[in-house]
Amino acid sequence: MSESLDKLINSIKPVNFELKEKIEHRLNNLTKPKGSLGRLEEFACRYCCITNTYMPPKLKKVVLVFAGDHGITEEGVSAFPKDVTFQMVKNFLEGGAGINVLARHVNADVKVIDIGVDYDFKDMPGLIHKKVAFGTKNMAKGPAMTRQEAIEAILNGAEVAEETINNGANILATGEMGIGNTTPSSALTAAICQRTPEEVTGKGTGIDEKAYKHKINLIKKALEINAPNLADPIDCLSKVGGFEIGGICGMILKACQMKIPVVVDGFISGAGAIVAKALNPNVSEYLFAGHSSVEKGHKVQMDYLGLKPILDLNMRLGEGTGAVLAIGLIEAGLKIYSEMATFDGANVSPGNEAEI
Amino acid sequence: MSESLDKLINSIKPVNFELKEKIEHRLNNLTKPKGSLGRLEEFACRYCCITNTYMPPKLKKVVLVFAGDHGITEEGVSAFPKDVTFQMVKNFLEGGAGINVLARHVNADVKVIDIGVDYDFKDMPGLIHKKVAFGTKNMAKGPAMTRQEAIEAILNGAEVAEETINNGANILATGEMGIGNTTPSSALTAAICQRTPEEVTGKGTGIDEKAYKHKINLIKKALEINAPNLADPIDCLSKVGGFEIGGICGMILKACQMKIPVVVDGFISGAGAIVAKALNPNVSEYLFAGHSSVEKGHKVQMDYLGLKPILDLNMRLGEGTGAVLAIGLIEAGLKIYSEMATFDGANVSPGNEAEI
Repeated sequence: MSESLDKLINSIKPVNFELKEKIEHRLNNLTKPKGSLGRLEEFACRYCCITNTYMPPKLKKVVLVFAGDHGITEEGVSAFPKDVTFQMVKNFLEGGAGINVLARHVNADVKVIDIGVDYDFKDMPGLIHKKVAFGTKNMAKGPAMTRQEAIEAILNGAEVAEETINNGANILATGEMGIGNTTPSSALTAAICQRTPEEVTGKGTGIDEKAYKHKINLIKKALEINAPNLADPIDCLSKVGGFEIGGICGMILKACQMKIPVVVDGFISGAGAIVAKALNPNVSEYLFAGHSSVEKGHKVQMDYLGLKPILDLNMRLGEGTGAVLAIGLIEAGLKIYSEMATFDGANVSPGNEAEI
Repeated sequence: MSESLDKLINSIKPVNFELKEKIEHRLNNLTKPKGSLGRLEEFACRYCCITNTYMPPKLKKVVLVFAGDHGITEEGVSAFPKDVTFQMVKNFLEGGAGINVLARHVNADVKVIDIGVDYDFKDMPGLIHKKVAFGTKNMAKGPAMTRQEAIEAILNGAEVAEETINNGANILATGEMGIGNTTPSSALTAAICQRTPEEVTGKGTGIDEKAYKHKINLIKKALEINAPNLADPIDCLSKVGGFEIGGICGMILKACQMKIPVVVDGFISGAGAIVAKALNPNVSEYLFAGHSSVEKGHKVQMDYLGLKPILDLNMRLGEGTGAVLAIGLIEAGLKIYSEMATFDGANVSPGNEAEI
């Protein structure tokens, strides 16, 4: 493994829960029955512990959308042509995609990163250039990428996260675009969570039964041919992963190192998150699961990460859409924590503690 | 029944779904796989159909918080003293309560209505005065209110909704405050949904096992002594209901008449909603269920209304807190619908319809 990646992985410490009691004490003194705001209170408490702050500042939210292409698309695994990846990158930059609309809704910035799109964007304004290669290779015929490329994808993702956090972001959301990318995500989930392809493969953007069986067979073939070392997450990523998945893994590792919470979007983001957790188990403590994806393998990822999704709205778009909506709810929790009146302050009689 | 209430109830027509196909056509041409934004798309479609608009205007959101007291509190059914009702009304007016924080978060206005608090607010600024009486009577000893009072509560709620909608609100959220009000809500849910008190009674703000059994026994007693006519929702409301529940029922009826969607909060709001639906079954078509309350009887109400809650965050505060958070998600759906680029407009290749 590269020296700088090793260093990053080993620098991630467990969350410091020293302030937890003090935070809970404050939550219990707000003018509401104890615990009655449920998960909003949990979000506030976790955010404060992760960042180790008693009084959190206003949120500065950024979603990082990593885009990459996949050699496996030549086998016909998606309902969309591969060109849609670069077309959608342009759509992101023009502000017309789902993630743009929802990020504006919650007042989050969108950063779009070319980490492996099979298209020459030249110096397209607004795009962050971190291309590792022009798409992965077809993993049904050999490794999706080299080990060196996998490491580069992770480090590129980490670099973008570091710059974003240094510019003031104090919560990040993961996002991605890549036609065909549910296929490597399923393969990675099967490898890292040690499940069968059937248990972790869904219908992506929308394919029929025949195409679905074909997809499962391709995943089986990719795992057989490449025989990733299940004890080596980088080997798994390089053999059956994708560049955007590596980028997401890297942004998560860096955010954990810098004690900034990350809201993980759906199934492809989840694949990045499980690779990160496989590299250092402390990672989960810094993550929020944005939503419950319709994709079948998402629950397996959530179990592996030990996370309970915030939203369940039958979504399966990706791009970071579920994650940014969830950020709005985490922010609601933080506002409850910092803006609500206390029993004393508002002259409201507290409840009978004995009965509660 | 009063002539004006009769007229209101009979004026509620089914939602006109004439635009549905056109709306769905637009949703399917946005740059995303068909249906991939799940319930966000459903929210947009329902909002547009309810208001019968193809291009909805910017949302103007208002939560109506009805406050009332309950004679049953003298039996010890809550972990909080009864005075907390008027104390919290003051807290609402000062902006320090949970509902104030969350309404600000989604940019909704809060209107606070005294519909039956056992306190003389005099001409307190900001408060909407619609008091029917200084709290209900103890329903374990006789009817909570007279039939005339029940009708007055409904019509007062309708008046506030009408004024709010006439002032530009195009989506309403229900809210309430009333120490002890899970008890009449359980009694009403048992009566209207024809369930046993055990099936619909939870622990409210937080009571122990002994107090919980006491609460169930009181509900049984109230239903026995008063023997509400299950075929007459107004009789049920008057005998085992509350003024704020009547107010919520009235605001819902008026909003339905005026074709404005209502987001229903948790268990107490749900009690108002089931009374409204019992009065006219068309009501459900105009409602969104904001969240899934922790209160046991909430699921029974949702089944009766045929609604699937938007959020599930373990909340049980009431006040409208779950409903306003859900409004933020309905608004997200409307923005997706009106702001996203189309395949044509963004030069993105559409998916293979045959495969989808």
